Amino acid sequence: MRQLFIPVFLAVLILCQYSLFAQSSDNLVQYVRPIIGTQRMGHTYPGATVPFGMVQLSPDTDTIPYEQNGKYNPDVYKYCAGYQYDDKTIVGFSHTHFSGTGHSDLGDFLIMPSTGDLKLNPGTADKPRSGFRSAFSHATEVAEADYYKVKLEDYNILAELTATTRVGFHQYTFPAADQAHIILDLVSGIYNYEDKNVWTFVRVENDTLVTGYRQTSGWGRTRTLYFAMSFSRPFYQYGNKNYSKKEVYRGFWGKFDQAHNFPEIAGKQIRMHFDFHTREGEKIKLKFALSSVSTDGALLNLRTEAPGWDFEKVRQDGQALWNKELGKVLVDAGKEEKENFYTSLYHAFINPTVYMDVDGSYRGLDQGIHKADGFTNYTTFSLWDTHRALHPLFNILQPRRNADMIQSMLAHYDQSPQHMLPVWSNSANENWCMSGYHSVSVIADAIVKGNTPFDPGKALDACIATSQHRSFEGLGVYIDKGYIPAESNGVSVSTTLEYAYDDWSIAQAAKKLGRMDTYAAYLRRSENYRNVYDPSIGYMRPRLSDGSFKQSFDVLSTNDQGFIEGNAWNYSLYVPHDPAALIGMMGGKKRFVQHLDSLFTMELPDRFFAETEDITRDGIIGNYVHGNEPSHHVAYLYNWTDQPWKTQERVRMILQKQYRPTPDGLGGNDDCGQMSAWLIFSTLGFYPVAPGSDQYSLGSPAIRNAVLHLENGKDFTIEVQDQGDKNVYVRKMVLNGQPLTRRYITHAEIMNGGKLVFYMSAKH
Amino acid sequence: MRQLFIPVFLAVLILCQYSLFAQSSDNLVQYVRPIIGTQRMGHTYPGATVPFGMVQLSPDTDTIPYEQNGKYNPDVYKYCAGYQYDDKTIVGFSHTHFSGTGHSDLGDFLIMPSTGDLKLNPGTADKPRSGFRSAFSHATEVAEADYYKVKLEDYNILAELTATTRVGFHQYTFPAADQAHIILDLVSGIYNYEDKNVWTFVRVENDTLVTGYRQTSGWGRTRTLYFAMSFSRPFYQYGNKNYSKKEVYRGFWGKFDQAHNFPEIAGKQIRMHFDFHTREGEKIKLKFALSSVSTDGALLNLRTEAPGWDFEKVRQDGQALWNKELGKVLVDAGKEEKENFYTSLYHAFINPTVYMDVDGSYRGLDQGIHKADGFTNYTTFSLWDTHRALHPLFNILQPRRNADMIQSMLAHYDQSPQHMLPVWSNSANENWCMSGYHSVSVIADAIVKGNTPFDPGKALDACIATSQHRSFEGLGVYIDKGYIPAESNGVSVSTTLEYAYDDWSIAQAAKKLGRMDTYAAYLRRSENYRNVYDPSIGYMRPRLSDGSFKQSFDVLSTNDQGFIEGNAWNYSLYVPHDPAALIGMMGGKKRFVQHLDSLFTMELPDRFFAETEDITRDGIIGNYVHGNEPSHHVAYLYNWTDQPWKTQERVRMILQKQYRPTPDGLGGNDDCGQMSAWLIFSTLGFYPVAPGSDQYSLGSPAIRNAVLHLENGKDFTIEVQDQGDKNVYVRKMVLNGQPLTRRYITHAEIMNGGKLVFYMSAKH
Repeated sequence: MRQLFIPVFLAVLILCQYSLFAQSSDNLVQYVRPIIGTQRMGHTYPGATVPFGMVQLSPDTDTIPYEQNGKYNPDVYKYCAGYQYDDKTIVGFSHTHFSGTGHSDLGDFLIMPSTGDLKLNPGTADKPRSGFRSAFSHATEVAEADYYKVKLEDYNILAELTATTRVGFHQYTFPAADQAHIILDLVSGIYNYEDKNVWTFVRVENDTLVTGYRQTSGWGRTRTLYFAMSFSRPFYQYGNKNYSKKEVYRGFWGKFDQAHNFPEIAGKQIRMHFDFHTREGEKIKLKFALSSVSTDGALLNLRTEAPGWDFEKVRQDGQALWNKELGKVLVDAGKEEKENFYTSLYHAFINPTVYMDVDGSYRGLDQGIHKADGFTNYTTFSLWDTHRALHPLFNILQPRRNADMIQSMLAHYDQSPQHMLPVWSNSANENWCMSGYHSVSVIADAIVKGNTPFDPGKALDACIATSQHRSFEGLGVYIDKGYIPAESNGVSVSTTLEYAYDDWSIAQAAKKLGRMDTYAAYLRRSENYRNVYDPSIGYMRPRLSDGSFKQSFDVLSTNDQGFIEGNAWNYSLYVPHDPAALIGMMGGKKRFVQHLDSLFTMELPDRFFAETEDITRDGIIGNYVHGNEPSHHVAYLYNWTDQPWKTQERVRMILQKQYRPTPDGLGGNDDCGQMSAWLIFSTLGFYPVAPGSDQYSLGSPAIRNAVLHLENGKDFTIEVQDQGDKNVYVRKMVLNGQPLTRRYITHAEIMNGGKLVFYMSAKH
Repeated sequence: MRQLFIPVFLAVLILCQYSLFAQSSDNLVQYVRPIIGTQRMGHTYPGATVPFGMVQLSPDTDTIPYEQNGKYNPDVYKYCAGYQYDDKTIVGFSHTHFSGTGHSDLGDFLIMPSTGDLKLNPGTADKPRSGFRSAFSHATEVAEADYYKVKLEDYNILAELTATTRVGFHQYTFPAADQAHIILDLVSGIYNYEDKNVWTFVRVENDTLVTGYRQTSGWGRTRTLYFAMSFSRPFYQYGNKNYSKKEVYRGFWGKFDQAHNFPEIAGKQIRMHFDFHTREGEKIKLKFALSSVSTDGALLNLRTEAPGWDFEKVRQDGQALWNKELGKVLVDAGKEEKENFYTSLYHAFINPTVYMDVDGSYRGLDQGIHKADGFTNYTTFSLWDTHRALHPLFNILQPRRNADMIQSMLAHYDQSPQHMLPVWSNSANENWCMSGYHSVSVIADAIVKGNTPFDPGKALDACIATSQHRSFEGLGVYIDKGYIPAESNGVSVSTTLEYAYDDWSIAQAAKKLGRMDTYAAYLRRSENYRNVYDPSIGYMRPRLSDGSFKQSFDVLSTNDQGFIEGNAWNYSLYVPHDPAALIGMMGGKKRFVQHLDSLFTMELPDRFFAETEDITRDGIIGNYVHGNEPSHHVAYLYNWTDQPWKTQERVRMILQKQYRPTPDGLGGNDDCGQMSAWLIFSTLGFYPVAPGSDQYSLGSPAIRNAVLHLENGKDFTIEVQDQGDKNVYVRKMVLNGQPLTRRYITHAEIMNGGKLVFYMSAKH
């Protein structure tokens, strides 16, 4: 009786608190709509996660195989985050998801409750009743920060999800059922294919605890994830089926019935079921903890983070964490703007993800177990995307975490057999995705901005070592010739441009640390962008080994023209570290403005759009591709011309056209928060055109007021006078009472606290 | 100059010491001939290992696949230890081998040196030049305890091997070669098949150090072994080839040339090469450390056990370890007898094997990392074989190690999801091989003999839990009915008999610990052998569920007659714990003697021999099968009749017929030392008919004199008067000056030290 009483009492108390809280002004979670970006190309997921959480517990509406009949299946791309808004069925709820990536992996440990005759096959979308998947409707779906709810219509089961950093918490409300099942599908995965599952190992420790691991080889080539799964009540029987096409050697295991109530299961393609009898309205809860280290680590995480069975408390704690993080920026704006802004902040604060047990242990790149000494270890570094605005945003709003992320990168460097900083790393794996070595940009930005609770000298050494790895993607010949010849590399121009920018960022860090020889050397390297510019046509252009430019060339095409995720029109603007020099090289300000204007206004023929990866038609404005990253700084380049008002105009247009608080509200992949970080900066009125510089280029704020609560205890306020949809032009600016006539503010000006007032106008 | 001088000086010193030592009387290594049992059915290996070493570094003459075209390939059986004496080529030298098993696994990390054009395929025995394998001759082969040498004729490379507990040490003397290679074959393995390699992961850390791991699924279902490989000089280039039939997902790794000088390799079927230029006579040395824990663990083992590059010192240290262990028994006998005896002692002291890093860390059955607290963790428990004589031998000669082995079994029990003691365990895996639960015999024997530096009460609890696991192989119905019905199990009779013996051993342990209820209960269970005895025919016989005996039955056949590795003739004698009752049941002493006599003298028709597993024609005497274990106690059963002289006669005959100091000198699998332990006991004149009893049944010693140097500091001497080939009968015995008229001695009598004198005669 007493046991019963206390939870009920607490639950009532919590509900009261929650409803009070929900009405209070600092309930920012109400503006977070995780559903944004789940339709079409956003590749976000609607499920439950805490800030930077290791667990992303979210519904998967399909798990299309990466290959069919030995050929790439382009539909797999839709399911980078496991969920597509237009789908009619949910296959189950898995614990790991990338947010907004354009390639994918994960989808580990899919859980699905069901009733009736046991089905251990997921079935297909066109024949949903053929498997355990269930129909669902958006009418019953609730997606909040760290809370997801949906009715599984085939089974009349209400599914609710929440999470702590390392533990997914499921709550399934069953109907009365003689046959009720919880399915653990260890076959399912995102970007799955026949041989992706390398090994699965499961132990049923007792009638409420299951442990194990799965190793996969996908984007993460050697990726092992451990789990511990705890049930709120005992199952009365359990079993599994091994779906491996070819059974591995069985030996004396053959003398057991391994399919029923057998506690030790191993193989490549395992699906398990745990069976119950349920009363009407009975809740079966699951806690599912992850670890990169061991099942013991998962158990430690489980017992530390989620010791009890109070689902509402875990949800409330998770949403409180979100309110704390979201509360770092308070904005005054319309509801839609707030939804866009706080959902962007939510998406920005999802990645990178914590990657260590509660005791600091984590699996390293060498697949050995390491201890994070004095920092939180993170993974999911989509650096080609996130060095641009996400990490600079962290230097303002999450400086401690950003420094820990850099410590994590340095640990990766220490563990790397190539002695390189991460390129695109996840879960103790480097996947080498995209180009450049943009860790150096993140590190340089932190060094230049003085956010260095790590050893900046060692960090700079790591940057230098990375930038000198001759066998890495044309880097040797780049060092020798100053550009990558088109013969040796299909994306020779964009990679040359990216190297040049990265080198500039190394130079800035060296200068800050007083290493002037390094500064000079890398400043020289940073001018290599000049070597792929063809003045005869006014574009960056693939150059051959003999110094001549490649003859066949199309400035609009992104297909095999020497650029990655962009065409010459966009990439010719990619000298973020020296727009003034770029403008000079391209014929001066007037001609440059013409180039920019044309970019935003031209009509891109359909055949060129078809080549443009990762974005919808909405993700493009003229020939300006916002849905991909290489042009994210472009709108701000007008600031280096005589027409800075065009920056203000374009930024506001992009904010309006590219972001909507709807499922299809993202015009391209969110890319681990980079698209969101662009919105956050641009909404606040400034943007880091060249991370590694301490300057933010000024645009046109889209809120009435914003206060940045900084970790150092100071506040930086942005006040906007005469804000309005048409008042997109900045008439004047006043910083801390003094007129601001520059087109940038500095990092120090923000971090010292103070107030920047924009005076807006409908005319420029 | 100084660096050169010191090793040369040391080498000279070592060689002097070694040659002096080799001539001294306590150089017992000279009698060890690891080549014994390498021809035909012995399944021993000739390579280098230290006592109970984790590394068994030995040549593999072939790696026949377990399956060909989807069907079992019976030839694989010949290669249980990787080496067959009749073969003409060596494929390479791998680091793990079982000794004498009748099923197999391991063969991890095959190293092969070569010269000339690189071949990364092993080739086949019939087309040796098609791959990297090399011809060799026994003329250049030297196999000693912890030392192996052979000339690889195709390459004119002298290969030498030695080992520490966890490190294999290779020394290859090359000719002058512009192309010299060290091949690391990560595909090769024993009992290999297409999907056995689950994953391989390798890092080239620098130009002398390589680390990695391989996971396989074979007899050990989820087995992962880590390594660290150190070269004595830098390779100038390296590379690999992935032989996976289906390439796994490559992603952005495709932008690298992963085959050449690329430091991070992963996949399922990898072979690597490390390239050198060599001068004539140049030695390239390799140290290859193993760990079950991690590559860091392997590095720790490497640096702790083998810090230097002095091959001769490692060999000398290893052989000194062997002399120390072999010196526990000094025998006076002829050269051949000494070779048989010390080689048996050598083979007995190979298994079980150490299974932890130097810091006590090891991988447990749950695939988690554990620490052995206060004991050395062992693996390779071939308990169906070794509970009979090997572990009893350890209770005399290796009591500390035997107690550690029991601690290791108890740790296994703690980690077991079935909550069972090991059946046949290796490398953090239970393979469930054979029948019974003979851990309980090993534990009971130690408890009864007072060798319990572990918690005997906890150990007994583990025995009881194991014996009550109803879902284990007929155990539930055995508990209910007192026998396993023939309908439910193909080996119902032998398993019933084994359970009955195991139960008796539990009873003995319970009695010793004063748990008399348990004693009584298990003593009752131990009489279950009566339930499968058919008095109408005088044999043990399969019995059906309804209590009737199975009609169709052949007492000579081993094929589907209800017995494992034996027929009714042999298995009807399997009541080791109560021979007197057995004799009574079988019609009295006279009739029993007739049964025994017939067993040893009858002519077994060829068709029945053909069914007898694991042994050569030599492994059988009449219908007595010494090559398999279930009859190992049989010759001693005459001691319970009126004709004990026949025990003496038979034992001497078995010693002569079943053991020879030649490659084909073992008539059956050595079975991890059980065959050898039989020889050791029987040569000394006594045998543990029923482990769990403190009595050893007396036979006929085959030496002139033996001194057992016991760990407790005492000596037990066996003196034999009038020894001779024909003087096989014991005329009288004197123990510590008192006439001994019993047909047994007790464990305490041995362990208290003293002298037993046998007086021999040509007449009984």
